[in-house]
Amino acid sequence: MPVFLDTTQPDFEASFKQLLSAKREDSPDVDDIVAAIIADVRKRGDAAVLDLTAKFDRLQLTPQTLAFGREEVDAEIAKVSPEDRAALELAAQRIRAYHVRQMPEDAQWTDPDGATLGWRWTPVAAAGLYVPGGLASYPSSVLMNAIPAKVAGVPRLCITVPTPDGVINPLVLLAARISGVDEIYRIGGAQAIAALAYGTETIPAVDKITGPGNAFVAAAKRRVFGKVGIDMIAGPSEILVIADADNDPDWIALDLLSQAEHDESAQSILITTDAAFGQAVARAVEKRLETLERRKIAGISWRDFGAVITVRDLAEAAALSDRIAPEHLELCVADPEGLSQTVTHAGAIFLGQWTPEAIGDYVGGPNHVLPTARSARFSSGLSVLDFVKRTTLARMTPEALRAIGPAAERLATSESLEAHGLSVSARLQKLNDPGA
Amino acid sequence: MPVFLDTTQPDFEASFKQLLSAKREDSPDVDDIVAAIIADVRKRGDAAVLDLTAKFDRLQLTPQTLAFGREEVDAEIAKVSPEDRAALELAAQRIRAYHVRQMPEDAQWTDPDGATLGWRWTPVAAAGLYVPGGLASYPSSVLMNAIPAKVAGVPRLCITVPTPDGVINPLVLLAARISGVDEIYRIGGAQAIAALAYGTETIPAVDKITGPGNAFVAAAKRRVFGKVGIDMIAGPSEILVIADADNDPDWIALDLLSQAEHDESAQSILITTDAAFGQAVARAVEKRLETLERRKIAGISWRDFGAVITVRDLAEAAALSDRIAPEHLELCVADPEGLSQTVTHAGAIFLGQWTPEAIGDYVGGPNHVLPTARSARFSSGLSVLDFVKRTTLARMTPEALRAIGPAAERLATSESLEAHGLSVSARLQKLNDPGA
Repeated sequence: MPVFLDTTQPDFEASFKQLLSAKREDSPDVDDIVAAIIADVRKRGDAAVLDLTAKFDRLQLTPQTLAFGREEVDAEIAKVSPEDRAALELAAQRIRAYHVRQMPEDAQWTDPDGATLGWRWTPVAAAGLYVPGGLASYPSSVLMNAIPAKVAGVPRLCITVPTPDGVINPLVLLAARISGVDEIYRIGGAQAIAALAYGTETIPAVDKITGPGNAFVAAAKRRVFGKVGIDMIAGPSEILVIADADNDPDWIALDLLSQAEHDESAQSILITTDAAFGQAVARAVEKRLETLERRKIAGISWRDFGAVITVRDLAEAAALSDRIAPEHLELCVADPEGLSQTVTHAGAIFLGQWTPEAIGDYVGGPNHVLPTARSARFSSGLSVLDFVKRTTLARMTPEALRAIGPAAERLATSESLEAHGLSVSARLQKLNDPGA
Repeated sequence: MPVFLDTTQPDFEASFKQLLSAKREDSPDVDDIVAAIIADVRKRGDAAVLDLTAKFDRLQLTPQTLAFGREEVDAEIAKVSPEDRAALELAAQRIRAYHVRQMPEDAQWTDPDGATLGWRWTPVAAAGLYVPGGLASYPSSVLMNAIPAKVAGVPRLCITVPTPDGVINPLVLLAARISGVDEIYRIGGAQAIAALAYGTETIPAVDKITGPGNAFVAAAKRRVFGKVGIDMIAGPSEILVIADADNDPDWIALDLLSQAEHDESAQSILITTDAAFGQAVARAVEKRLETLERRKIAGISWRDFGAVITVRDLAEAAALSDRIAPEHLELCVADPEGLSQTVTHAGAIFLGQWTPEAIGDYVGGPNHVLPTARSARFSSGLSVLDFVKRTTLARMTPEALRAIGPAAERLATSESLEAHGLSVSARLQKLNDPGA
């Protein structure tokens, strides 16, 4: 049973705080193992990667077979049904159309003092995308990570995907092909992250690593952060649905379950203005749990972390939502746009009852890599911005230096940084006395 | 003596690689101490912060005196000279004018399938800025961190600044006042970071922490990352100057020294097309080092990490610059704009001989918090973007769902996520058979 809360009850604040602070994930401490793996890859390069792949994935590779060959990819892709291919291509086209609008613009202007200022955006030179193997090997995640990188203009984009016992999901390869991925390595785990960050004889190092992974991958990403850029370390998925009574309880139940089925640690919360509707949704969840393929996972998630909260009005709902700062927020109310204006912290908002969150996972266009665990308070989903960086530009004329240089000199002196001040005053001296 | 390299020499590549990989900083391992301090602050709140401040800063505070009072700030600020105040205000005005242009725009559009898509940017609700005490207590850094936050619209911005033995730099308080900082706490070290991240009875928690600090502060920021957002962990400062022979060697020497004087681990590199000019600059550095106030620090930095590289032409210079990915890049050449177009990885570029890097530290306008240690390959300087986050928006009409829903269903099935598919198909069913 999920928890049922009601804002009119005296113990609500205490119960809500407990819900907010519930620890959903116990990450095993794999830091020592990961440190050893990274050290091994830095020291022995390919040889270490090959040994670790033989050990963990039961797969004997050589430097020549670390990467998929073009023909191999062609052969795997040929296995994909035309319907699956069409669906992937539609998704890719829509994701691309959304992300091209995110490309930030360069700027340059001259200010009243005569200083020319601005900035320029450029893509990272090489990015690596980690794709999990096995059950969590989602072709949609390949699109969501690879397309923003290619839209950003990243010239070299590679993927690492473990293929335990040599098994690969052809849809993953097709998604990589559609997205324009340049290299695909059949390696995984901390050894893949180490190879991407430090490079080996066969795998050139990249500058940025993104993509989800297990505890070993997450720990390895934390460790190489600084040597390369990384995206956020993602936690278990979450959804918050705010719904009034004018909804089909079964639709809302399915939306809640579409997060719960991801992971036993996922969290699905319903906030409603109508207690009876909340009860009806809970019953609909139980009914769907009788037959759902992933009922075991979804059932545990709903039981341990699910919640149904009854509120007095939608203003109260929006305020609670901001305290939750959900990864996914569905607004199934009469005026979803109006309600969305009163919400500040959310990774992605799905407006109205015709927008189930699952649309956003695949074909909506916005990215499905989103901030979890309340981090929407301070961070954003994956975007083109993750694959570009900004260089600021400044050019002074002699007149501009004359106008603002003395203030720089003064501040340098107040900070006891004499050379800073001298680098300005030496030039000002020349300006004031060209013959000197 | 700095190293002298020449791209025409056979051992150049090996020497350059050595220069690139030289370890400039030995961070002491303070992780255990920091973990204990954070745990203490989480457990005991104010009491822990007060005890630690008494211990490390020799300062007895109470919950009532943790923050500076308004009158206290007024009294300190009154000590600042009119000239220093005017310089700070000019700097603030120019930094603000630059950063307001960085504010990203919201977007919304309806695509051919009838889906309404977009995104919205909102500021973080509360940000905390760490300001070091003592020698490294730079008022300019207060401006550079606080102004982007206020431009972003952060409603609550607080500062922590340690005041060992009760000593505070009035210019730091004035910079905070000018920037619109809301609260100033006289605490520092890992205990300040812990208080900002987790909150105490007196200090409400923030969502984002920025600002430089010593090894304890850096380790604490790493530890609280995830609970709150942080900016980059900054390393020692760096400058790369690319200069042809048509420059005053003394000016270039001063520009190199303005980084070297920051820190014994700072790095200053000159790349020139003229070996004799390189020698002249090195001589000018030695001459300035005879009298410079911070000659000890600057001398060690220049001796241990300085370099003068002679290249065949500017194309070679640009290529080497991209391998260095410098924090600061000065282009003292005839066509600095043209050369800047051929450079991809740099935190900030200073164009032409009238733009000494020190201008950018104070009054240029662009931020002086910039990526160090080659991280300009994948990251950017501090900006308004560090204090906002993006929420993506999607709204389907029934027609849009009919158009793209089946592809989502298909992909959900291929990923074995049945509830995802059902959340779409249940709605499509209703559309196709409204009476059902």
